Amino acid sequence: MAIQLWDLAMAEELRRPSPYCWRAKMALWHKELPFETIPVRFTEKDRLAFSGQGAVPVLVDGDRVVTNSWDIALYLEERYPDRPTLFGDATSRALASFVTDWADLSLSSVLFPLISVDVWRHVHAMDKDYYRRTREERLGTTLEQAAAGHEERGEALRRDFLAPLRATLGAQAFLSGERPLYADYAVWGTLQWMRSVSRLPLLVPDDPIAAWHERLTALHGGPARAFLTYRT
Amino acid sequence: MAIQLWDLAMAEELRRPSPYCWRAKMALWHKELPFETIPVRFTEKDRLAFSGQGAVPVLVDGDRVVTNSWDIALYLEERYPDRPTLFGDATSRALASFVTDWADLSLSSVLFPLISVDVWRHVHAMDKDYYRRTREERLGTTLEQAAAGHEERGEALRRDFLAPLRATLGAQAFLSGERPLYADYAVWGTLQWMRSVSRLPLLVPDDPIAAWHERLTALHGGPARAFLTYRT
Repeated sequence: MAIQLWDLAMAEELRRPSPYCWRAKMALWHKELPFETIPVRFTEKDRLAFSGQGAVPVLVDGDRVVTNSWDIALYLEERYPDRPTLFGDATSRALASFVTDWADLSLSSVLFPLISVDVWRHVHAMDKDYYRRTREERLGTTLEQAAAGHEERGEALRRDFLAPLRATLGAQAFLSGERPLYADYAVWGTLQWMRSVSRLPLLVPDDPIAAWHERLTALHGGPARAFLTYRT
Repeated sequence: MAIQLWDLAMAEELRRPSPYCWRAKMALWHKELPFETIPVRFTEKDRLAFSGQGAVPVLVDGDRVVTNSWDIALYLEERYPDRPTLFGDATSRALASFVTDWADLSLSSVLFPLISVDVWRHVHAMDKDYYRRTREERLGTTLEQAAAGHEERGEALRRDFLAPLRATLGAQAFLSGERPLYADYAVWGTLQWMRSVSRLPLLVPDDPIAAWHERLTALHGGPARAFLTYRT
């Protein structure tokens, strides 16, 4: 049986914003492993009960069930050592861990208030109330208010917050050097989250970040393009 | 002749805040290379004229003169390949480049307004006017105003901005894994800049970041402790 990946879907089944699911998909493409995705909505957590928890991604590989995108990457690396490495050596894996934590705890945090209302616009009808209630609790305000001035805040974020990414990618092709590895996919996945639901102008012409993002999107024959995203 | 490192000094000759000089010193200790530091003040740029520019650190190794902390690290790695590596392989060096850019363009940027007035308090009398004028131009306000509320802002910075660093260092001993490499020194050096002049509470008990910072400060027999810093 092919590998299965449970992947968060919006009202449109091919719109898949989860940054963690993007990482898992890219890790599978990188390992050249065929897989099928199974769309699941926010309020269908009961369908993931077999995994012992309620969050995507969930990877099913034969009788193995693996949750959490980082653990999925570690699992694939260990289970398929003859396929292209996702990390390189232990030092590179340790550094990729920091890049991933930066994407999760800094980049995601600054994007979250700016794009939550965009996610809400795209979620399935059955998820609308759940998503608004849980995210507004976390934001401490309405989805709309949290995104106020998102154009200007997005531009400031692109210019200032992403400056380190721009500096690195102005000097080398990928965060991981001459070839992309998991650290690249971690940051790319977080930006794919944004791009899946929003026109926030973070990826703009003549910015090395946009060129790098596009190179990653085109990798492995460009299967990422089968899913719905916006262009800015 | 021993290697010489031109190192920014304050009024007290053993107070050396420059994050870039800290990185160069740590790189030299890591490579187990004996060296002497030559203190230089902000307004003594003419003493660096031999290097073709006016910024510290400047490394003099025989007839080689190397400027820029990243270039100094690359030089030491290439010139002394039999000494402990500063980077590991090309992938790790590429990832260390992003960590360094993050320290320079994100962490330094958020610290700069909070500690510039502390730097000013410590600079040599001959540097006071120069430092205030150039930094207030960059800040667009007075040194004092830029640091307003620094206790609370420092605590927020520690809690939120440093969250990725905390997550990584809660799971592994060093950013580079089981042993410290240049990526660790880049971030450590930026925090040493703060600690050289300020009591901003970024390194506090029971935080994995403080424990990591202390492990790094104690490395190589603890020569970093010969210089003046504050404890919080």
